Amino acid sequence: MEFTIQSVCVPTRDGYDWVDVQIQQGRITAIAPHLPPLGTLINGHHKLLLPGFVNAHTHSPEMWQRGLIAPLPLELWLAELYDFTPLAPEKIYWSALGTAVETLLSGGTTVVDHLILIPGQEMETIAAAVRAYREVGIRAFVGPLLHDQDFITSLPTGGQSRSPVPNLRSADETIALAKAAIEQFHDPAAGIHIMVAPTGPQLCSDESLAGLAALRDRYDVCLHTHLLETRGQHLLFTEKYGCSAVAHLQRLNFLGETTSLAHCVWLDDADIEMLAATRSTVVHNPLSNLRLGSGIAPVLKYRAAGVNVAFGCDGSASNDSQDLLEAIKLGSILHNVTDLEYRHWITPRQAVTMAALGGAKGLGLQAVTGTLAVGQWADLVLYDLENLSLLPRTDPIGQLVLGRPTQAVHSVWVQGDRVVADGTVTTIHLDTLRAALLDHSEWHAQRTSTTLPQFQTYYRQAMGLAAD
Amino acid sequence: MEFTIQSVCVPTRDGYDWVDVQIQQGRITAIAPHLPPLGTLINGHHKLLLPGFVNAHTHSPEMWQRGLIAPLPLELWLAELYDFTPLAPEKIYWSALGTAVETLLSGGTTVVDHLILIPGQEMETIAAAVRAYREVGIRAFVGPLLHDQDFITSLPTGGQSRSPVPNLRSADETIALAKAAIEQFHDPAAGIHIMVAPTGPQLCSDESLAGLAALRDRYDVCLHTHLLETRGQHLLFTEKYGCSAVAHLQRLNFLGETTSLAHCVWLDDADIEMLAATRSTVVHNPLSNLRLGSGIAPVLKYRAAGVNVAFGCDGSASNDSQDLLEAIKLGSILHNVTDLEYRHWITPRQAVTMAALGGAKGLGLQAVTGTLAVGQWADLVLYDLENLSLLPRTDPIGQLVLGRPTQAVHSVWVQGDRVVADGTVTTIHLDTLRAALLDHSEWHAQRTSTTLPQFQTYYRQAMGLAAD
Repeated sequence: MEFTIQSVCVPTRDGYDWVDVQIQQGRITAIAPHLPPLGTLINGHHKLLLPGFVNAHTHSPEMWQRGLIAPLPLELWLAELYDFTPLAPEKIYWSALGTAVETLLSGGTTVVDHLILIPGQEMETIAAAVRAYREVGIRAFVGPLLHDQDFITSLPTGGQSRSPVPNLRSADETIALAKAAIEQFHDPAAGIHIMVAPTGPQLCSDESLAGLAALRDRYDVCLHTHLLETRGQHLLFTEKYGCSAVAHLQRLNFLGETTSLAHCVWLDDADIEMLAATRSTVVHNPLSNLRLGSGIAPVLKYRAAGVNVAFGCDGSASNDSQDLLEAIKLGSILHNVTDLEYRHWITPRQAVTMAALGGAKGLGLQAVTGTLAVGQWADLVLYDLENLSLLPRTDPIGQLVLGRPTQAVHSVWVQGDRVVADGTVTTIHLDTLRAALLDHSEWHAQRTSTTLPQFQTYYRQAMGLAAD
Repeated sequence: MEFTIQSVCVPTRDGYDWVDVQIQQGRITAIAPHLPPLGTLINGHHKLLLPGFVNAHTHSPEMWQRGLIAPLPLELWLAELYDFTPLAPEKIYWSALGTAVETLLSGGTTVVDHLILIPGQEMETIAAAVRAYREVGIRAFVGPLLHDQDFITSLPTGGQSRSPVPNLRSADETIALAKAAIEQFHDPAAGIHIMVAPTGPQLCSDESLAGLAALRDRYDVCLHTHLLETRGQHLLFTEKYGCSAVAHLQRLNFLGETTSLAHCVWLDDADIEMLAATRSTVVHNPLSNLRLGSGIAPVLKYRAAGVNVAFGCDGSASNDSQDLLEAIKLGSILHNVTDLEYRHWITPRQAVTMAALGGAKGLGLQAVTGTLAVGQWADLVLYDLENLSLLPRTDPIGQLVLGRPTQAVHSVWVQGDRVVADGTVTTIHLDTLRAALLDHSEWHAQRTSTTLPQFQTYYRQAMGLAAD
């Protein structure tokens, strides 16, 4: 399919230009004013064209619990979250579809789904999510969430004694699951990438982490995991490793150019240097870090050290949205309170680069997506600058990043295929999605978890909070 | 006009109930299941009814500069902002209309406009904003932004010498402007309230602050001002007063039950006690406090001390939106990183109470608005729970506050008058507003202010930042 977006506003180095953009066979083939019309013509008048962003960390099944979990720190929030799994594969399909739709309608063309698996139905879970992403047409990196240890081991002891608990599964079984997922579903040509994605060092044995890391070279896949999200994890790793978790991951050969690490809130300067040296990517999830009280990731330090940073929404139960523009806004302005030197603050243009190119780099795709340039895939988002939320006319990228765009995405193409037109997803029926989400759910007021009280006393003691 | 909202979801103490709500002559007259149908019938099926929120601090003319000003601290950002005033009264009208529309479509029924005045056209400025608010039908508190001192006096010296500068106007002239505004425009019965609203102690003489405070008793109006927004102001007040700005305002009789204070980021425990003792209201503007690097207001301390807290969007050049739900979300979750004790964190239900009742209290209106109760004014907002951004069904208030509702407001009534229906403002033509905002603006990339470089060296020295 060939098409030309005509007279569209695009950012230049310091300003804007109005150009025609030609796309052939999924790639950008020309960007210049007044090109000869080629293929379908798209009117770019009063519209802004940007490269698609990457929603670089989420957990799609959490959509079923968004708005539901009380304000709690991660460790207790997780107890609430896991109490209400497992889900059915059908629900996995619908929440993946919902996650993709919200990502597309907020400027994303790629989603990284750190996918919570239904125990005993691991392959069915992955199949359901992959089906949704193929149908809607978003580029998806699906990382089955894998760990071999019990939840209690993810909490620091704070000196409390703890009985040994059996592993959930062996390291070999854990690694076998990842291999099976890759062999069955990894299909980059179709826009479906399987990642190797342990839950995090707080729930994984060294044997499983090293074995999973080794799959990167064997299959040429990306690595992804949670890292140092909370103060509790920082305390845990000091107990568990006696060294920084970053140094430990480095010894296990887990870091590298196609490794992306979600959160990275509690890293010190030496850790930051190690991420820079290994060219690992930090995925910043500002909204869930606030919602769960995890802290403010030292993103200005990452940028100063040359660490690549991308943005993620995180799962919908800890945010509780999949609006990527909201994550980009907060992920930019949040850090202004951490450094008096305002010349370090993230500008809207820098935020757009982080969201597009930063996201692509973390997935090893910077040669083909993340930039508006001839030769790149046509992962493109067209914003309607006549939308009330982007008016009056000022600086379009400033409005997009610092404002609160509402239904401002006009069109989206993923590798040249149009998946959003006139503000509506064209590849699936949104009314069917809405009906499914409505039908498979019910209103709650105060849901009661049995797991939360079980861990709360232990957690409060470990974290030095007053006893009940 | 009489109407009944049927079978609508409303919050109870701990959960939800589905009831009919009857409205007669602008007030709620009954709330109960299965009421006899009265007047126009509104279908409340799959909808949530809440009291209208208060956008408790904004500056409507800033809408013309939203998305435009680079990431800068307040003091330098102001230099940029003021460089591009004055505006024309016609533009004041359109930006007030835009501010009202965004407030209504994000759950607000009342707006507090700390109105930037066009020099020499002060009454025309107020008239233009008042006309907009009357036409759209939102309840408006308009506080003409008044000060008598030059901008340079709002910066701390940091020991630098500074030549004396003449006052902008005398204290008497300043007070006369406030009196004229009240006498000409204060019309509570029509939903238009004039507030006495000095810019802040950083730009006002004691004589003008005391004289303005005295107008409260004479005219029974509310007081409103900025207070201790930045570290720079904290330093300034130490130089200027030799005591806390809160103690100083108290001596000038400025605090009290109908005094609302925007920002309050840099207060200490004694200041907080004084706000509690005087029953003053803090207006929390989390997004502009981040965007301008002002800091995180100690909102959990305010709540613990019994200080009333409301939410504001602040002006659109420092946020850069007027979406009240966004301010409520951030104003809730932001504080989770300031206190390890998660039992102090703000719940979604508490956030709704702050936004509605907290806002009403700061304006002395808690007897008539801010609660869903018989006898209260029908300041009501109906949310569409079938909206994709509020699905799947979980906890409706959790979804509304922690999610990112997108066009989820179905209907709005202000004192019983319907101003939004089916998601659209019915009292004005949105297309006309969009065309006006488009026509009166142009796209910028890097706007250059002449004032900014003038103050930057001085500011950097005063704040202890490295010299250029």
